[in-house]
Order: sequence, then C-alpha cells, then structure tokens
Amino acid sequence: MTTICVPDAAAAAALGELAGVDVVIWDGTGAAPVGLDRVEFLVATYSSAATVSAETLAGMVRLQVIQVLSAGVEAWVDRVPAGVVLCNGRGVHGASTAELAVAGISSLLRELPRFHADQVDHVWSPGLTDGLDGKRVLIVGAGDIGQRVAAAVTAFGAAVTFVARRPRADVHAIAELPELLPRHDIVVIAVPHTPQTHRLVDAAFLAAMPDGAMLVNIARGQLVDTDALVAELVTGRLQAFLDVTDPEPLPGDHPLWAAPNVLITPHVGGGTHRWEQRAYRLVREQIVRFDKGEPLENVVLDGY
Amino acid sequence: MTTICVPDAAAAAALGELAGVDVVIWDGTGAAPVGLDRVEFLVATYSSAATVSAETLAGMVRLQVIQVLSAGVEAWVDRVPAGVVLCNGRGVHGASTAELAVAGISSLLRELPRFHADQVDHVWSPGLTDGLDGKRVLIVGAGDIGQRVAAAVTAFGAAVTFVARRPRADVHAIAELPELLPRHDIVVIAVPHTPQTHRLVDAAFLAAMPDGAMLVNIARGQLVDTDALVAELVTGRLQAFLDVTDPEPLPGDHPLWAAPNVLITPHVGGGTHRWEQRAYRLVREQIVRFDKGEPLENVVLDGY
Repeated sequence: MTTICVPDAAAAAALGELAGVDVVIWDGTGAAPVGLDRVEFLVATYSSAATVSAETLAGMVRLQVIQVLSAGVEAWVDRVPAGVVLCNGRGVHGASTAELAVAGISSLLRELPRFHADQVDHVWSPGLTDGLDGKRVLIVGAGDIGQRVAAAVTAFGAAVTFVARRPRADVHAIAELPELLPRHDIVVIAVPHTPQTHRLVDAAFLAAMPDGAMLVNIARGQLVDTDALVAELVTGRLQAFLDVTDPEPLPGDHPLWAAPNVLITPHVGGGTHRWEQRAYRLVREQIVRFDKGEPLENVVLDGY
Repeated sequence: MTTICVPDAAAAAALGELAGVDVVIWDGTGAAPVGLDRVEFLVATYSSAATVSAETLAGMVRLQVIQVLSAGVEAWVDRVPAGVVLCNGRGVHGASTAELAVAGISSLLRELPRFHADQVDHVWSPGLTDGLDGKRVLIVGAGDIGQRVAAAVTAFGAAVTFVARRPRADVHAIAELPELLPRHDIVVIAVPHTPQTHRLVDAAFLAAMPDGAMLVNIARGQLVDTDALVAELVTGRLQAFLDVTDPEPLPGDHPLWAAPNVLITPHVGGGTHRWEQRAYRLVREQIVRFDKGEPLENVVLDGY
C-alpha cells in the first residue's frame, strides 16, 4: 500500500480512485496529520515549500518523492531531504503558459488594448499595426513551453532561434546571447529560475537588444533585473510583456505599472480552470510508475 | 514589354524594378491615365472594384489579369471581363489574419481586457481563467488562414476539426455542420464570402453551438447573420471575437458594440505594416510567371 499526501480534498477528488493507494490530505500548514510518517509520495504546492518545516520533513521517514505541480521548483530545491527525488510539473502548464506568452506578444504588436478601448467607445477606427509576420524571435529555453511558443509564432510567419542551458542541434548556448540578441526582435524567457539563471536578463542583456525589441517573461520574475528593464521601458527603447515580475505581487506604487509599452498579467500563465485536472493526470501517472518501480518522469533535482 | 497598372507610387516602389515591365499608376478613381489601354496586368485594391467603371474596364482592351491583393474578391468577381483571369492575395494576409484570430480567442478566454484594466489601476489580482488547452476548435475553411490557426491552437493544447466547401481527407463537408457544431467549443469562420457562403452562420447555425461556445469571424461580416448573433450574445449563451462585421464600419449605435462577451477589432486581420511588402512580393512573382507564359498562382475566378 503506497501512501501519498495531496494538499486538499479537491486534489484528492481530481486524483480519483487508485487501487492500492492510501491518501493523506494536508496542505503543509498547521499540525502534521495522522499518517504523515507513512507518506512516500508528497504532492506539494508551490507555496507549501515555505510552510512545511524542516522538522516535519525530517519526520517523514518513508518519503521518497516530492512532486511539485509547478514548472519551477526553486522554492523546494534546497529543502529536499537526502535520498528523496524532486519532480516538477513539466507539461502541466506548458500549453496554457505558451498560449499566454503568444497572446501577450500579439496583444502588444497588434495594439489590442487600443482596439478594445475603441470598442468601449463604439468607435471603428482601423489602422496598420505591427505583427509577428517576419519577426525574428529568440526563445531562451527549449523545453515544453518554448517549443509550443515556437510552433505558434512560426505559424504566424515569425522565424525562431533557440537558446538553452544545454546547447544541442538547433539550440544555441547561453554564451552566444551577446551576438544573438542584436539580431532578434522579440526575446521570450522560458527557462527555470536557478542560481545560474538569476537575473540572466540584466542591463547588458537588455542593452544588446535592438531598438523597439520586446522582452517577454512568462517564467519567473527573478530572471530579470526589474530596475534595468524599467529604465529601458521609460525611454521607450524597448517594450515588454510580463506575466511574472520581481517583486511579486507587484506593489501598487511600483514604476513598472506606469511604464509605457508594457503589458502585465498577474502570474496567470498556468492558471486556467483545467490546470488541476492536467496536474492530477500527471500525478496519477507518476504514482503508477512509482508503484511499479519504473523511472519517474520530470525528475529535476539532478538538473540543478 | 508587359504593361501593368498599380494603384499608387508607394505600390510602384514596393514592386521595385522589373526588367521589361512598364508601370502605369492609377487607383481606379478619376480620369483614366495615359497608357491604360495598354495595361495587361491590373493590380486592384479591394475598394477599386467600386470606382473602376464598366466602361473603363471595357476600354482596357489588352487586359488579361486582375490581381486583387485581398484574400476576398467578392467585390470583383462579377466585374471581370470575358477572358480575364482574376487572382486573389492568398498568402499575403494569412499569417497576420491567423495571428489576430488566435490573439482574439486567447484574449477572450484568458480575460486579457480585465487584466489590462487591472494594470491601468495598478492592481495585481490573479485568478483562474478559461484557456485553449482541451478545447475543441472547428475551423470552417481549410485554406492558408485556417491551417495557420490550426497549427497555433494545437500548440496550445486544443484539438482541431476542419470543414470546407471541398471535403477531402481530414476535412469534413459543410453539410456535416449540424452534427459537428454541438461537439465544438470554438468555431472559426475562415472561408471566402460567396453567394454559397452568404450568411452561412444563421440562427440555426448559432443555435447548434453549445452553451458558452465562441464564434470567431476573421473572414467577412456577411458570412454571419448579425441580428441572430446579437440575440445569442445578449442572452449570454455565446461569446464572439469579430474582426469583421455586417455592416462595416459598424455604426456607433449598433447593438453589437454593447453586447456582452464580444471582442471587436475593426477589420485589421491583414493590416500589418509589412502587408504591402508581402503583397508586392506576390505581384512580382505573378508578373514573372505572366511574362514567361507560366500558370498564375491564386486564380480564383473558376472557384466561384
């Protein structure tokens, strides 16, 4: 009998019946529930890394897997006990995060906020705008999200270049960024936040982007030096679509809100109604693998 | 020496130098210019169909080709003299029109206007929204625009079904719409406006769509019965993204403006800065074919 822990009753319902699996419900806050010491497979939320104490984790003597449901796991990566595998939610948020990235890019290029304001005023006022056709898009990160963004923008006439931590065929190295950035109109950040990628997008990175270029961040706010970005936005030299910011939530008096040429959404890339259904489809598959002693998918601990 | 007619000096500049080609500039309004009787290849704008008189057309005794730069040619189709070939701008607007279609769909599903209003108010207020992942998308029209929309929404996790005037492998017949409509969440209209497709989307078509479904029209307003659509929108049963309307421009007092769950853009699907560059790349290629006696691309007259 495998014992797993999920954060709430809705999660248990989304998981459904699984033969030979005992479910403990706990969201990582408050007192440890009965049975936590039997848990082998912990389904953790992004935020529970901050609430599950080291002492409680140490008391989970049978723990073998921490399965996080977000793509990013940086809040958990330093908290994993020895011998425990950390898995992320790769694939759970890929489609919806890529959708938001491209929707944000096209909203800016095609001036959808302006046309929406015209709609509110009942005004029909066509005019030529920018668009993705012919644009050169540099995607930093060649994982699930990056590949989906590439497929869509290619369909809209853009040309894509990939950069990633592990260079390979058709994927350039991070070290090549200084020569690649000046030759691209749009840069999409789609890599995990790690010590190596912290503030990857700094003043020098932004300065290498050509006039009028667009930065897109749908990964983590800490990948970007916010002050450096604000400086480039207020002069009007760059534009940006940001689903994530640093800090987050963005305080009401932060200069990013009022900067020109920026579109901001409040970290909703993966936040669609179906996300939990997708997440627990992954969890079910992982538990079946775990039960059979098969290798797990989405193991990220050794990636850091 | 082939003589061609283009609408303005900007068009002549976009066309560039072509050996053995004489260019006459005329936009179809005012008096016929010197040399019009020598023109073999007429580059026509969408609106010039209304201004070039039948008498003037009859006087163009050497005319062999009318090349329209829009995807739709319904304004020209009844005006083509005997023996003259009518070509459309297929491919010129495909990428940008598909981009706008998908941007409109995602803007509605992901509630981008609401997040933009929050941005204006400096408010960070995340929440779950709808999204394309898992959606069933019915695309009416399997041409360039439809194929590009399909590629993008598939990348975002949606499943696509095609319907077209000519059924073929993986493309259903228009006659199958009554059984297909109830099984789809989003219907994208991407067919030309012809007598056969006039008001294809009528009250019965809309009634067959399930509750909460979305109609997307990026083709021509006359493909949709506007009154029937308004009726379904005001009850809140359907939602819509419309880049084209009937009538167009939409008058300020039209009920469509104030209907709930509708996003309207003013017929800007193909209207990006690069459209003329793309259009005259096509025109150049067509003129080279014409000069060599090769078959032209995008011949649509016999398609009507």
